[in-house]
Amino acid sequence: MKSKRSARLIDMTRYLMENPHTLVPLTFFAERYGSAKSSISEDLTIVRQTFRDRGIGLLETIPGAAGGSKFIPYILKEEAEQFVGEIKQALNDQSRLLPGGYIYMADLLSRPYILRQIGRIIATQYLNHDIDAVMTVATKGIPIAQSIANLLNVPFVIARHDSRITDGSTISVNYVSGSNRRIEKMVLSKRSLPEESNVLIVDDFLRGGGSAAGLSDLVKEFNCNVVGISFFAEGVYNGERKISADQYTSIFKINTESDKISVSEGNYDNKVYGYLDNKEN
Amino acid sequence: MKSKRSARLIDMTRYLMENPHTLVPLTFFAERYGSAKSSISEDLTIVRQTFRDRGIGLLETIPGAAGGSKFIPYILKEEAEQFVGEIKQALNDQSRLLPGGYIYMADLLSRPYILRQIGRIIATQYLNHDIDAVMTVATKGIPIAQSIANLLNVPFVIARHDSRITDGSTISVNYVSGSNRRIEKMVLSKRSLPEESNVLIVDDFLRGGGSAAGLSDLVKEFNCNVVGISFFAEGVYNGERKISADQYTSIFKINTESDKISVSEGNYDNKVYGYLDNKEN
Repeated sequence: MKSKRSARLIDMTRYLMENPHTLVPLTFFAERYGSAKSSISEDLTIVRQTFRDRGIGLLETIPGAAGGSKFIPYILKEEAEQFVGEIKQALNDQSRLLPGGYIYMADLLSRPYILRQIGRIIATQYLNHDIDAVMTVATKGIPIAQSIANLLNVPFVIARHDSRITDGSTISVNYVSGSNRRIEKMVLSKRSLPEESNVLIVDDFLRGGGSAAGLSDLVKEFNCNVVGISFFAEGVYNGERKISADQYTSIFKINTESDKISVSEGNYDNKVYGYLDNKEN
Repeated sequence: MKSKRSARLIDMTRYLMENPHTLVPLTFFAERYGSAKSSISEDLTIVRQTFRDRGIGLLETIPGAAGGSKFIPYILKEEAEQFVGEIKQALNDQSRLLPGGYIYMADLLSRPYILRQIGRIIATQYLNHDIDAVMTVATKGIPIAQSIANLLNVPFVIARHDSRITDGSTISVNYVSGSNRRIEKMVLSKRSLPEESNVLIVDDFLRGGGSAAGLSDLVKEFNCNVVGISFFAEGVYNGERKISADQYTSIFKINTESDKISVSEGNYDNKVYGYLDNKEN
């Protein structure tokens, strides 16, 4: 069936969005639509231009016989700032304060729109990195890990504090919880992560950094590499964290000292866009 | 900025895909692209046609002043069958067998493509239902819940076996685990589910149905309604399940008796497409 340009553009957009970070050969689209490669090439130029104009992402072109197009989603600084502003306001609601200075945010981290925008911000930082897997520890980091994994089109792996029968053989590490100095354990199914994978670690909240350090150790036990560590939010921590400030990215910084929630931006602006600022301006 | 049709079609496709089950007024697109409503109307006709031709979903048109377009994603029976066939083969790998007749499938339930297709199949069954939230119990059901929630554009809520400080106040139920007859507990944060919500329950695996029955009780404790219960897979269960056969949908049926994995299709074909078959043929 030969397709018209309008139908091709719609289906291509859908296909590229569902298959980000994947090299799609020109011939794939040419066969899919029964069209000449030259027409497909023109289509892709229009898609590329629109994705750029609308801040959707980069449509990279790899020339040559083994070439094709690769959609790399990102979020522009302005859209990220607007989103962060919205969520900052939502987090600043004093009714979120829980005993012990904790903050209720499960409602936010379960909404598809919010998870997608968080994913886009974190994915933007790793635009040019090879990432093979996203890793988190059960349970609150899972939705964030899944959202990023979707945009990077890689699997996500879930470490646990207790191993389950359904994990099969596991590898475990012990780590010192940063906030209460207890020895904790973390396990990951042996077959969930191939050797030499490049791993992005994510979690919902950074306190003392014990979990993040534990996850990093676990990555090393699998002979894999940590590409980065990203958090939805970080708290205020008095003492030395188990991971250093240059190692992680946080979107929000939440202070609940003196029994009042006060939310500001984390270091994401510099971590995600600082490099671009230095390079492009 | 006035947009050309080709750019409008690309951006519209992206916008509709990111905002499924949402009524988008004609005026929203007209303003976004600086175009006449009549042009937008023509664009939407092309999008609707392509979405249908490619089996992407339904673009519903609601006429009148308060009207607009609503994208309802689905998966056609043929594409679902092909996907189910692929995964059946992957599950039938004997190296997945774990002690006690359990089966390793975490690698499959962590890949974006697989989770999206599972979500599309389950979402297709509830095309015409009002669903306000997707609910699961931590942790293995979470990725499936998130995938469906994405397509239905509703929040997902996560019950737990142990409550955490960050849940705030919780409501709990006790239930009898179907498979080992132990009394278990399940808790859900009080503010995570508004009264009278219509809830779709999902989980990765159905054995005795204890968890699903517990989740149903929890839904009722919140004065909400259970719209349906869906599983990635069901096992073979000798005895009476806590939920009846007409209450649930399963995509796969996995038999590990006699220490061998044997995978067949669950009841999804009839549950998801039976209604359409009766109606349309």
